[in-house]
Amino acid sequence: MSDRTVTSLTNPTVKAVRALHLRKERDETGLFVAEGLKIVTEAIETGHAPAILMYGAEATTHPLLRQAMAATRAGGGEVIEVTQEILAKVSRRDNPQAVVGVFHQVFMPLEALAPSAAPCFVALHRVRDPGNLGTIVRTADAAGCGAVILVGECCDPFSVEAVRATMGSVFAVPIVRATEEAFAAWRARWPGSVIGTLLTATMAHHQATYAKPALVFMGNEQQGLTPEMAALCDVNVKIPMRGRADSLNLSVATGVMIYAATA
Amino acid sequence: MSDRTVTSLTNPTVKAVRALHLRKERDETGLFVAEGLKIVTEAIETGHAPAILMYGAEATTHPLLRQAMAATRAGGGEVIEVTQEILAKVSRRDNPQAVVGVFHQVFMPLEALAPSAAPCFVALHRVRDPGNLGTIVRTADAAGCGAVILVGECCDPFSVEAVRATMGSVFAVPIVRATEEAFAAWRARWPGSVIGTLLTATMAHHQATYAKPALVFMGNEQQGLTPEMAALCDVNVKIPMRGRADSLNLSVATGVMIYAATA
Repeated sequence: MSDRTVTSLTNPTVKAVRALHLRKERDETGLFVAEGLKIVTEAIETGHAPAILMYGAEATTHPLLRQAMAATRAGGGEVIEVTQEILAKVSRRDNPQAVVGVFHQVFMPLEALAPSAAPCFVALHRVRDPGNLGTIVRTADAAGCGAVILVGECCDPFSVEAVRATMGSVFAVPIVRATEEAFAAWRARWPGSVIGTLLTATMAHHQATYAKPALVFMGNEQQGLTPEMAALCDVNVKIPMRGRADSLNLSVATGVMIYAATA
Repeated sequence: MSDRTVTSLTNPTVKAVRALHLRKERDETGLFVAEGLKIVTEAIETGHAPAILMYGAEATTHPLLRQAMAATRAGGGEVIEVTQEILAKVSRRDNPQAVVGVFHQVFMPLEALAPSAAPCFVALHRVRDPGNLGTIVRTADAAGCGAVILVGECCDPFSVEAVRATMGSVFAVPIVRATEEAFAAWRARWPGSVIGTLLTATMAHHQATYAKPALVFMGNEQQGLTPEMAALCDVNVKIPMRGRADSLNLSVATGVMIYAATA
């Protein structure tokens, strides 16, 4: 059924897929790993054909796998049956998913974004934690945001940790990379509100006006928005801190802001 | 300066602290581990004296450590200087924090909660993921919630993963455990709104009325609220899902609900 069955960890395709745990390899190849038949199927439905499709024997009878295999071959990709051991090494998990897809990374150019296409867009400055980034992409998808824009040096949205946290939304939400300078220039033409979240702001987030399309701009986990980035916003708001904690988890704060901007 | 210096991994205190990675040990001893001088200091400030205070040589000159040592001894606790290797084993991290405290778990009885003490309370049914639980405790603290109530079989709020995600809020927010039956009986006397979040609800979360004190009730990561638990609520709402994602991360969803209930 498969093009070939692989049992060796030294097989070149297996080695190449395992190497995608390294950002350098992902950057050079433009590829990334997504795990699970459900997510691979959603990827194909949204137009992303796997470059490589790996599966374990236990998945062979699943009708969705047949579809995924056909879609992979139709796109010129490689289909291989592998052992449980290989799946575990590729996923770095004792109980790996039975299906793993390798996909081409897609970054949308900043200039290609259509502000009118969605009520809300999200920009993140120098986000560090891949779990946070993936969770934010998932929230952006759920809330119907038009894109997630990564400003400056960010962690990789295509790391396994980030992709896992997206729960498949990495295929649904346009992801954009921009330097601080490019973002500042592009933002000058933004037709709606640009809202920065800042612990030192005085206005509560639920008191602000979010002219659509709203662009929610969040700083990183350690520093929040820098003064330079906060100055790019029309308004800076703070999510009220009423207890001893002096900050929220970044993915929680971003979720609160996105839903405030789209209520 | 310390009561004694320990270098051996077979030291009984070191072994006892390491064993606290196991839920069984935490349940039996009623103890848990919190890492970092900042969090240990906050714990002491909120009235929690460490049962054991461990520190590495690099921390010895820090004035906050002196205070923590004095507070530990004043509470009858044990202070020990340990090696970097022991800190790494206790934290299961290559780069451990230089200070680790062992504290007594505190659960507040359901009957001891004062509904008038806060505008919002959070209840979680059968939450599974310690990172989510810890992040929710942090959000509850930041938003000024009165308690986090764990309904039914939940993951342990005092696991290292959960405590880390709270960022110290585990010492600031009352944590309650209740069976489904006890929660149902207690909830009958709740003076404000009980709001359940349900993917099948028709009312959007931002359209509901949250009579104070609002009790926000969330289901678990896999199932959401069960019909039995949803029936305990005055109103069921859904956070709008406008994209391909069919759910939010639980800690994000809970954050959105808490801030909607307290806006």
